[in-house]
Amino acid sequence: MLLRLKRFLIGKPMKSQELGEEKLSKLKALAILSSDALSSVAYGTEQMLIVLFTVGFAAMWYSIPISIAVLALLAILVLSYRQTIFSYPSGGGAYIVAKDNLGIRTGLVAGGSLLIDYILTVAVSTSSATDAVTSAFPELQRYRIVIALVMIFFLTIMNLRGITESASVLAYPVYLFVVVIVLMIVIGLFRVATGDIQPIRADFGGQVSGVSLFLLLKAFSSGCSALTGVEAVSNAIPSFKAPAEKNAASTLALMGIILGFMFLGVSMLAYFYGISPIKDVTIMSQTAEAIFGRGIAYFVIQGATALILFLAANTAYAAFPLLAFMLTKDKFMPHAFMIRGDRLGFSNGIIILAVLAGGLAVVSNGYTENLIPLYALGVFIPFTISQLGMIRRWYRLKPQGWLIRLIINCIGMLTTLSITLIFLITKFNQVWMVFIFLPLVYMLFQKIHRHYMVVADQLRIDVESEKPEVKGNTIIIPVAGITRVVMNTISYAKSMSSDIVAVYIGFDDEDIEKMEKKWAEWDCGVRLIVLRSRYRSITRPLAKFIETVEWKKSGAGHITILIPQFITKHWWQNILHNQTSLLIRAYLFKNKNVTISTLPYHLNK
Amino acid sequence: MLLRLKRFLIGKPMKSQELGEEKLSKLKALAILSSDALSSVAYGTEQMLIVLFTVGFAAMWYSIPISIAVLALLAILVLSYRQTIFSYPSGGGAYIVAKDNLGIRTGLVAGGSLLIDYILTVAVSTSSATDAVTSAFPELQRYRIVIALVMIFFLTIMNLRGITESASVLAYPVYLFVVVIVLMIVIGLFRVATGDIQPIRADFGGQVSGVSLFLLLKAFSSGCSALTGVEAVSNAIPSFKAPAEKNAASTLALMGIILGFMFLGVSMLAYFYGISPIKDVTIMSQTAEAIFGRGIAYFVIQGATALILFLAANTAYAAFPLLAFMLTKDKFMPHAFMIRGDRLGFSNGIIILAVLAGGLAVVSNGYTENLIPLYALGVFIPFTISQLGMIRRWYRLKPQGWLIRLIINCIGMLTTLSITLIFLITKFNQVWMVFIFLPLVYMLFQKIHRHYMVVADQLRIDVESEKPEVKGNTIIIPVAGITRVVMNTISYAKSMSSDIVAVYIGFDDEDIEKMEKKWAEWDCGVRLIVLRSRYRSITRPLAKFIETVEWKKSGAGHITILIPQFITKHWWQNILHNQTSLLIRAYLFKNKNVTISTLPYHLNK
Repeated sequence: MLLRLKRFLIGKPMKSQELGEEKLSKLKALAILSSDALSSVAYGTEQMLIVLFTVGFAAMWYSIPISIAVLALLAILVLSYRQTIFSYPSGGGAYIVAKDNLGIRTGLVAGGSLLIDYILTVAVSTSSATDAVTSAFPELQRYRIVIALVMIFFLTIMNLRGITESASVLAYPVYLFVVVIVLMIVIGLFRVATGDIQPIRADFGGQVSGVSLFLLLKAFSSGCSALTGVEAVSNAIPSFKAPAEKNAASTLALMGIILGFMFLGVSMLAYFYGISPIKDVTIMSQTAEAIFGRGIAYFVIQGATALILFLAANTAYAAFPLLAFMLTKDKFMPHAFMIRGDRLGFSNGIIILAVLAGGLAVVSNGYTENLIPLYALGVFIPFTISQLGMIRRWYRLKPQGWLIRLIINCIGMLTTLSITLIFLITKFNQVWMVFIFLPLVYMLFQKIHRHYMVVADQLRIDVESEKPEVKGNTIIIPVAGITRVVMNTISYAKSMSSDIVAVYIGFDDEDIEKMEKKWAEWDCGVRLIVLRSRYRSITRPLAKFIETVEWKKSGAGHITILIPQFITKHWWQNILHNQTSLLIRAYLFKNKNVTISTLPYHLNK
Repeated sequence: MLLRLKRFLIGKPMKSQELGEEKLSKLKALAILSSDALSSVAYGTEQMLIVLFTVGFAAMWYSIPISIAVLALLAILVLSYRQTIFSYPSGGGAYIVAKDNLGIRTGLVAGGSLLIDYILTVAVSTSSATDAVTSAFPELQRYRIVIALVMIFFLTIMNLRGITESASVLAYPVYLFVVVIVLMIVIGLFRVATGDIQPIRADFGGQVSGVSLFLLLKAFSSGCSALTGVEAVSNAIPSFKAPAEKNAASTLALMGIILGFMFLGVSMLAYFYGISPIKDVTIMSQTAEAIFGRGIAYFVIQGATALILFLAANTAYAAFPLLAFMLTKDKFMPHAFMIRGDRLGFSNGIIILAVLAGGLAVVSNGYTENLIPLYALGVFIPFTISQLGMIRRWYRLKPQGWLIRLIINCIGMLTTLSITLIFLITKFNQVWMVFIFLPLVYMLFQKIHRHYMVVADQLRIDVESEKPEVKGNTIIIPVAGITRVVMNTISYAKSMSSDIVAVYIGFDDEDIEKMEKKWAEWDCGVRLIVLRSRYRSITRPLAKFIETVEWKKSGAGHITILIPQFITKHWWQNILHNQTSLLIRAYLFKNKNVTISTLPYHLNK
């Protein structure tokens, strides 16, 4: 039943050879790798406006200069990451770059930060997608969590089935989003320019009381959330058509230009149309409504926004299991993350991501606005580490023209570091969790690593000198009577050793006498030892007996316990048999160094 | 941790020899065996009044003649059960009597009926005890379920600890109850006789419209719920001091007299004080308040009532596991009901009873009034069967004076049968469940019995001719690399057979080649067979390989799979190891007829 449901949801298992990879053209790569970055437009402006709005409507004009500052930052990031692309053509995620240049510890900080961030990507993106839906259909407001969870469930199934990032179907919504947003910006600004509409808007350049440097920095850092996802291209260079590095670099540049245009455009629209943040309706929704009214155009924009946010969550579904795989290969995460599922995806990573992101959505009640700063911070920490790694690399390798490259990365590093610090200072009450989770994950990585190392030490043998030796084997058979099962068990024992004892554990004299007599009568060639259990326990007298045998053999040779176990025809029939064999097995296994052989006895009626 | 909690709640394990039994004097036996019967006074009158009240206050006077009819029935029951006592001095429960005289099928009907009834006893008695408490303290009304569940929990712990029925502490509340109720009756009737109080009461003998024979029969059957528990003495004869039968018979008679007096007394008080049933306050509570006011006397009566009801539930805790034990001995219930726990009680019976009764209390929301008819019916079915069994016995054995005895049991049987029928007719909407549960339990008994019989057939051997024979043993060792664990496993295999193959399941060519090379280098004396798994499954290729081996051996000899298993030092470390060995074990165990030997490898760091 369960298996059938699994087959229905995720399809038939696939052969290992079917693992292939399609190479991406620039245009397709742009669509597929930039959904995370471009979708940030859906909440970047809003985050900024929320901060400005705290001192009043008049402060809204600051969004324009701040957006330009964010744009400048974007340019710096794109330049820096171009250099990473050419240096790490096999994929330069922050974990790889940091591990390679700054040592494994820094690598783990970047890796841990990214893992947490991918979880936040899924939670934030699906929640924002839900916002886009509920802005258009307010009556769905009370099903927020359900909508977000359905999206997560759908993403999980999709990824377990193995829809790869390269599927063409995932590209169209990105094109659609870019086209509709660009159209919206053009038409919106055209109408402003023609004076077609004249809403109340903040006085540009006007003095506003209450605006402090702190507030502006806070607004700036909020705006930086629009830059999340920019790093995606640099992780995926091997997927590009040759010349891969060059194509990837162009794609990154193109993505930067589109993202910059859209972000500034949306910010300008919001300003010119005098839009301010209100509860339960996004800035995007308000803007689209102000420009087009609640017509078809409006719903297309909302739909495209929801879709691209959904795809942004999907990128985390590709990135998380892959990063987990890399960390597992380096023995910092449980082996389970290395196993490919039926459809060749790293199922465990996919499932863990889904569970954690779903949990986050439930805990935050579907309102993840408060998680966006944490999410953005989680991006800027690896940004900074990655730049730092590149600086170290230039300094170490000193290739031709290294100085100018080092300077570019230095500027990048200092900028992202500043933003990280601004985040920590201006939004401490929203991002303090990073000081708990990041060290926790880091410690866990180390603890796991230490365990694997210790185990490997214990298991390693010298192939030259260490060979298996033959020792004696004492076989102990617990018996409860004389039945076909006992006969089979003794037959089995006789085929493997001549050192056999049967052990009967009796509760009262009458039973014991009867058993002894019957055993003698049977005369099966195996000695019977009778133990009296005053507390009606089977396991404890047996364990004591094993100790005696161990003591007699003084550690030389093996000890085997043979336990017959009924296998009933129907599962419910198990209730009818005392699960003594399971009890014995569990108890001895935990406490004694004996081999436990379970002989199945299939009841066929 | 869990073990420590268990020790705290139920105490240290006891030795089997400590199982002893104290013999009861008549007076003590009266107290201990009659709590179930005497406690019925707490709801018997009430049940009757509820029915009469449906046609109006004027009908209340009928309670007096109906009570007298119930009394007559009580006399018949006492006489009938006297005869059972003398015929079955080792204990004559309905299951035993029916099985002995009417065959096992009728016995199972009686036994099933009783088992269900004991569950109802606990649910009804604890709920009635809760009623007594909440009548006195109405503010506790909303904690009804909690109070009932706490009582059940307490009873369970008490019985798992092994407070036997014979503990003196259980006798005092019964004496107290008898004393206070008798005092209440005497004082109450005295005050009526002196004309001290003159409340509005129904006109005795007055014509009331709406009173039909149906109604009166219904009220009568409701009143019969006061007779539940009368059979207890006849089950416990071996516990009496010698001469046991005589003492038991006198105790039964004495109990009958006290019960009859109290029941009639309470009914008369209720009539003379003009009390009618109201929600959330019991008749007992109203009566006590009418006589004594809400003073100390009132609270003592409520307390004694709650206590005796609590003890009535306790009798089911003794009876249910014992009857389950008897049914298990006859192989109609799972073996587990025969196991004595740490404190020598049949813990499984106690726990199952607690769970079912607790569940019933929760499902019925703590209002078990509706269960009382079902409960009473469940008593009268075994009453009837038991009488029928006695009739059959007299007719079969024909001892001296058998005719008169047969007639007594005939009258008894016909009366209880009539009441059973009245129940079914007048209260069908409250007792129809018996037609579902009783057949269900009966079928379950039969199904279980059949299974045990079939298994016994399969297991039985002829001690004379069937002896264990020695066969070959092929050992298959799945290996994943060359480690200390693999070396140990091969060492073990070599000590038991010379027919050994190691099996490596590879996912890609590179791994396979590497493994083959390393294995050759090691040269451990065991052949390596390499299987390629295209679907990354370990179990399926292994199972296929086993099939090949099976086919080659064509069924002769054993096949053993050796599986090494890590035992990590801390449980959480298990997450770090793929549980492949468990998977293999579970899969093969279910599907193949191979012995699975698990070699523990204790990681000590």
